[in-house]
Amino acid sequence: MVAFNLISRAQGSYVRAIDDGVIEDWPEHFTEDAFYKVTTADNHKRGLPAGVIWANNKAMLKDRISALKEANIYEPHAYRHLLGAPTILDEREDGATSETSFIVVRITGQGPIDLFSSGRYLDEYVFVDGQALLKKRVVVCDSSNIDTLLVLPL
Amino acid sequence: MVAFNLISRAQGSYVRAIDDGVIEDWPEHFTEDAFYKVTTADNHKRGLPAGVIWANNKAMLKDRISALKEANIYEPHAYRHLLGAPTILDEREDGATSETSFIVVRITGQGPIDLFSSGRYLDEYVFVDGQALLKKRVVVCDSSNIDTLLVLPL
Amino acid sequence: MVAFNLISRAQGSYVRAIDDGVIEDWPEHFTEDAFYKVTTADNHKRGLPAGVIWANNKAMLKDRISALKEANIYEPHAYRHLLGAPTILDEREDGATSETSFIVVRITGQGPIDLFSSGRYLDEYVFVDGQALLKKRVVVCDSSNIDTLLVLPL
Repeated sequence: MVAFNLISRAQGSYVRAIDDGVIEDWPEHFTEDAFYKVTTADNHKRGLPAGVIWANNKAMLKDRISALKEANIYEPHAYRHLLGAPTILDEREDGATSETSFIVVRITGQGPIDLFSSGRYLDEYVFVDGQALLKKRVVVCDSSNIDTLLVLPL
Repeated sequence: MVAFNLISRAQGSYVRAIDDGVIEDWPEHFTEDAFYKVTTADNHKRGLPAGVIWANNKAMLKDRISALKEANIYEPHAYRHLLGAPTILDEREDGATSETSFIVVRITGQGPIDLFSSGRYLDEYVFVDGQALLKKRVVVCDSSNIDTLLVLPL
Repeated sequence: MVAFNLISRAQGSYVRAIDDGVIEDWPEHFTEDAFYKVTTADNHKRGLPAGVIWANNKAMLKDRISALKEANIYEPHAYRHLLGAPTILDEREDGATSETSFIVVRITGQGPIDLFSSGRYLDEYVFVDGQALLKKRVVVCDSSNIDTLLVLPL
């Protein structure tokens, strides 16, 4: 249960940074050499490597956040992530592989709440000082219709 | 992990009382001197103290349920809460502070299911006899558009 | 916490088989003599025995999957289940009774994501070789408006 507990805690912290916290904390959930990709279920199934969003180190993730802040596009409290419990696929002393389902709800000012996205995280975690860090996260969105203006991290 | 486990169990029991159980059990998840407030993310951010719903003891919560029952407004099976895993912010021997994301789905008879609310619980729990009781719950709704006829507990 | 952990793991595996995995794995989450029923909150409340879907052994569940595959109706990646934490109602050495809330999101190709179903699982688990298997699952859907063409397992 060590992996399950460490990963559960990391997931909670991750979505809190995006939904309610300090968005600059988001890249801190990754290792320096982390790989991050957002893709569609259809592309993932067909083995297509391209992703809607793609980064192969933490600096790129930080750049992305800076760009969002400068463009003044990112609005906190505008999204709400709900995650299922992580499924641990492989567990070692120093890390684990897991899958986690998610849905994201979008809140548009005074207007209605709508379902923005659903999918799953395919994750590789490493455990450092009692903390689970993402070495790799592939975000597989269920719908092929990903907003090309997609700005927030998933 | 003690706090995490106690709080997870308390959260499950709390939403069960509202969605499926005996609604009179809802106030039993609070201490006698509990503080309960429903507010919006916008008001919360600006530090405004007012809430849409507000109570500073358990008796007020019980009164609220009685009023709902008398007015025959409360419909069981009409809402479904889905909660994320609690994030423990501070853990002591006798209590803990935590945050938990939620979404609430509304079911309208034969009609469609719609997203009613999303947000997060800002909680202070005390542990009494191996049970986590809410000493304080601030429900921060993401949308500023809270139904003024809002009757069910969140 | 043994029951909680075993059941959490079983739930994760169950929804993964339906949403992302090999649908033929779905019946493997049940015992040979398992009872499975999908019903509505209204019928469940009134004690009506009939269900929209009904099976009293694992072979029937396997037949159902075969039929779906042959009719070519079942589409993977078309649904996403999100489950709450299980509430353990009764825990024994060799099994447990629990309730778990769920929502199911439907993804329609390029189109929007919509809320397909919400409700709760009323479960009886038996523990076999460190694994929780369903001896009984009654799926109580909140809405009375269950799609009669409902094909996927809930």
